[in-house]
Amino acid sequence: MRKAIVLGGSRGIGKAASKSLSLIDDVVVYSYDSKQCDTGNIGHIQSLCDEHREVDILVLNTGGPPSKNFFDIKTEEWNKYHNQLFLGFCRLLQIIKVRDDGFVFLISSFNIKEPNPNLVLSNSYRIALVSVIKSLSKIMASRRVSFVNIAPGPIKTERLSSLVDDLDSFEKSLPMGYAANASEIGDFISSIVENNTKYLSGVTINFDGAAGNSLL
Amino acid sequence: MRKAIVLGGSRGIGKAASKSLSLIDDVVVYSYDSKQCDTGNIGHIQSLCDEHREVDILVLNTGGPPSKNFFDIKTEEWNKYHNQLFLGFCRLLQIIKVRDDGFVFLISSFNIKEPNPNLVLSNSYRIALVSVIKSLSKIMASRRVSFVNIAPGPIKTERLSSLVDDLDSFEKSLPMGYAANASEIGDFISSIVENNTKYLSGVTINFDGAAGNSLL
Amino acid sequence: MRKAIVLGGSRGIGKAASKSLSLIDDVVVYSYDSKQCDTGNIGHIQSLCDEHREVDILVLNTGGPPSKNFFDIKTEEWNKYHNQLFLGFCRLLQIIKVRDDGFVFLISSFNIKEPNPNLVLSNSYRIALVSVIKSLSKIMASRRVSFVNIAPGPIKTERLSSLVDDLDSFEKSLPMGYAANASEIGDFISSIVENNTKYLSGVTINFDGAAGNSLL
Amino acid sequence: MRKAIVLGGSRGIGKAASKSLSLIDDVVVYSYDSKQCDTGNIGHIQSLCDEHREVDILVLNTGGPPSKNFFDIKTEEWNKYHNQLFLGFCRLLQIIKVRDDGFVFLISSFNIKEPNPNLVLSNSYRIALVSVIKSLSKIMASRRVSFVNIAPGPIKTERLSSLVDDLDSFEKSLPMGYAANASEIGDFISSIVENNTKYLSGVTINFDGAAGNSLL
Repeated sequence: MRKAIVLGGSRGIGKAASKSLSLIDDVVVYSYDSKQCDTGNIGHIQSLCDEHREVDILVLNTGGPPSKNFFDIKTEEWNKYHNQLFLGFCRLLQIIKVRDDGFVFLISSFNIKEPNPNLVLSNSYRIALVSVIKSLSKIMASRRVSFVNIAPGPIKTERLSSLVDDLDSFEKSLPMGYAANASEIGDFISSIVENNTKYLSGVTINFDGAAGNSLL
Repeated sequence: MRKAIVLGGSRGIGKAASKSLSLIDDVVVYSYDSKQCDTGNIGHIQSLCDEHREVDILVLNTGGPPSKNFFDIKTEEWNKYHNQLFLGFCRLLQIIKVRDDGFVFLISSFNIKEPNPNLVLSNSYRIALVSVIKSLSKIMASRRVSFVNIAPGPIKTERLSSLVDDLDSFEKSLPMGYAANASEIGDFISSIVENNTKYLSGVTINFDGAAGNSLL
Repeated sequence: MRKAIVLGGSRGIGKAASKSLSLIDDVVVYSYDSKQCDTGNIGHIQSLCDEHREVDILVLNTGGPPSKNFFDIKTEEWNKYHNQLFLGFCRLLQIIKVRDDGFVFLISSFNIKEPNPNLVLSNSYRIALVSVIKSLSKIMASRRVSFVNIAPGPIKTERLSSLVDDLDSFEKSLPMGYAANASEIGDFISSIVENNTKYLSGVTINFDGAAGNSLL
Repeated sequence: MRKAIVLGGSRGIGKAASKSLSLIDDVVVYSYDSKQCDTGNIGHIQSLCDEHREVDILVLNTGGPPSKNFFDIKTEEWNKYHNQLFLGFCRLLQIIKVRDDGFVFLISSFNIKEPNPNLVLSNSYRIALVSVIKSLSKIMASRRVSFVNIAPGPIKTERLSSLVDDLDSFEKSLPMGYAANASEIGDFISSIVENNTKYLSGVTINFDGAAGNSLL
């Protein structure tokens, strides 16, 4: 059996990933919500690593910071989201052993490629983590551990509802006319695990319904 | 039933995509080798479009140009690979109708992101096509046609054997210690089609076993 | 004395580059308009190379293709702009000798990074050339030939006037509230030449007044 | 007169930027070394902002973290370099007023685009700051404040000597056969300021002598 750990697993994309991974015969999923494992709390990360010394599939997911004017961000907020979006995950990746042939999925945001000026906290700490993930894909390549960064655009989650006023008209404004269900990402992740798509590593995959503008 | 057309379908990644797509219940695959449909031959492209006016899944694939010193490339070669790697595919995309909720997969190369100075013909015409694909992902988004560019690194194909001297020691030099089987890409494509992963559109996905160096 | 050749040198950015380069003491500028040297005409390119076998500073510049719906582009148009935006420049770079410590500047467009679906001809052939330039920056690095791709956004040229309806309200819609004068780019180029900024090579530099969205 | 503040101004690229900017007639330079203003010390940042409430030209520069195995990085080190490479600069940009038509230059590293697995601390926190800079280029565009990220490759500084064993053979291994002098970057910056190259904003410019591999 392969062991999967999903953080931020009670809602949105994390929940969908948990559900899809559970359907794979040889995978057992341990899902933690943000109270059981707050990635901004180094103690929680340590506890998680005490409970699970090794893992085959790791889904790094956490809620996003609030939309905020750059000039209004307080030092405590910088530090809080540094811990939650970046440092907690780095510590986890330093302590837990991802087994040979394992997978690490990061759920980030399509704003990492095209920063949204109202989401500076999210944009900056998430891209920092993507850089770490990229290096780890090289460092652990000889053990065939694959690192995949999923960068979602508008997904129909509670997070999205909190960011937009009128979901219906917002969806109509999107290139495909709708925000995707989180299950689309969950199923994408579980297919990679089920097929053992090992050669997909060190990549950022936008999942944004053609909303992104960057050529690459 | 959904109709799939695979170009360059008799070998390597094209063959693998054909095979994997064939296993999906509601998909019928029409596979063409490079003699039946030479993408550099505009007449062939027209014939293909006469035979198939509409399609649900299109896999754009063709052999690569030779490794060549930039200063030795002849005008005829520029024109030949312009036709084969770029113009034939553009004409096809202009003429054939990709049905609502369809998929277009391009098989390119990881050299588009980090150009290999010995493969200028391949690098340049392939990235040109990726640019077209990106625009089409926006143009056809309202009909939920998804465009996915797969950018493979070293895959165990006849092409690879022709480019390297000693396959065995070449593989050992790779980050993961091996070149992937084409079936890994075939299965990745068929999972997207089977799951109807529509929100994955306008993206370039390196498939290179952590060999790429670019952050994004 | 260093010899500079500027193509498309009678208008817009080419004209500005000619003018700025002329002010450098040790630089002589040969400027060609698009009738004297039509980059889509291989004969013109050959004549240019017969006249100038060697060059120190080369500015590759040409007018842009029309805005056009992808499905309306004719085969002749693909071929025309393939020649004008790509092949002519490649042939020139194959034939003319750029001397040791030389400079090659390409004037492209910020649409190469974020393709504009109405400018498929421009986006695709220009990015193809950028890929060639990138490879050449490596191939000629040992002779310290520097390649710099300038990717302009809205610049106050006749080209811009032809693309937008109301220049005044268009400018107000831009992040900085105005379209730049071509002389800003001309001066930028001449400063690089004057200072001998050799280490700037293999780069794409957007010149778009913060209009671009891509992180990198 | 325009006021310039240069951080990390006593050595390497910072020193060169100070020197070059000083030669501009209408610019007065205030240069701080890393003891006078340690960017990792929030008190120092506050003092700097008390001394200078406004600025026209800001050069953000600081020494790099040590090369280190990812698994050996301690929590204190993550936090130290978070402060030094990221948070201090963010606080500075929040507090000090960059005047209309001003310039902000960031000195980062070419490793932000192609992360070096041995320099995870540098790669990750620097790219985080680049993301902030990108957003600020949009936020302050209407006041024509330009943000330019210079991403140097190997530059002949004490930092480089500390990272490589044999400078001479290291230089021979570089594409251009040498590491650039810091003055090349200093002069590049001062030319932008002298020419008032305002339209260059929101960009990352590699300064690496063709060492980078990314197309864009």
